Amino acid sequence: MLNFCDYIRSVPDFPKPGILFRDITPLLRNADAYREMIDVFCRHYRDKQIDYIAAVESRGYLIGAPLAARLGAGLVIIRKPGKLPARTICEKYSLEYGADALEIHADAIEAGKKILIADDLLATGGTALAACNLIKCLQGDIIGLAFLIELEKLNGRKAFPAETDIFSLIKY
Amino acid sequence: MLNFCDYIRSVPDFPKPGILFRDITPLLRNADAYREMIDVFCRHYRDKQIDYIAAVESRGYLIGAPLAARLGAGLVIIRKPGKLPARTICEKYSLEYGADALEIHADAIEAGKKILIADDLLATGGTALAACNLIKCLQGDIIGLAFLIELEKLNGRKAFPAETDIFSLIKY
Repeated sequence: MLNFCDYIRSVPDFPKPGILFRDITPLLRNADAYREMIDVFCRHYRDKQIDYIAAVESRGYLIGAPLAARLGAGLVIIRKPGKLPARTICEKYSLEYGADALEIHADAIEAGKKILIADDLLATGGTALAACNLIKCLQGDIIGLAFLIELEKLNGRKAFPAETDIFSLIKY
Repeated sequence: MLNFCDYIRSVPDFPKPGILFRDITPLLRNADAYREMIDVFCRHYRDKQIDYIAAVESRGYLIGAPLAARLGAGLVIIRKPGKLPARTICEKYSLEYGADALEIHADAIEAGKKILIADDLLATGGTALAACNLIKCLQGDIIGLAFLIELEKLNGRKAFPAETDIFSLIKY
């Protein structure tokens, strides 16, 4: 297996001083690394009978979209407020640097469907928890959370019940 | 082939009065339709030896990301200003309702590489033209433009040279 860390560029002081930003664009632009990234996620989830992947705007799409196509799951998008055109439900949350909210279409999933949540980064867990709350509100069955990168020092995992399947490809 | 139009929801007066918004979320969430959508794009581009797919934030990722993974191309992201962490180049443009700008990492592609630009919607062509200008500025060779939806009345095609391969799955 590739060492995916080799394809992450660390950019100091972005988006603000003191933050070391983990830039995934070198991984995305390397065709072999990107494909293997999808393969690794695919192997982890292929027997879980996932109905929908819920991908968090916008970098979550970069993982969730190809994985949905590969697994034969539907893709549901979780967006910033005001961007989804039909009736939505909204969840407010705090994140590593600021506060925000997420929305999902109220008819995005049916009750009882198996959902995988996908995003690029697990930091404090605020965004992922908001995404989980949206799915729970629609009575989805959360099968797991998939991240490209996990910042372990920020203890994002602790925001979730211990039995939650949290799978991250790269840990810092 | 599926009639992809059946999976598009038309929402009147979004994001503002008088605009009929074409909502792609029903297509995304239908696993068979989403997979076939990727298949159709894949068939169109598989012999074009594309090096990179340049996907425009954020809905362009929903087409560009799975297509890159399927074609074995690298994925490059074109984003709104201030979101890419390393050195960027910027292109301002006007769009159907307002004005905006796009950025790409200055090291995103190498000169002479074959690039496919992917986005969800071709309307007036302003966004796609800005994306093309960014690629040209980095000396990329634009092989084509791929859209899920084309609004033919808005004549977006006319923004590009006649020989440009513009492929759209659904036309209104």
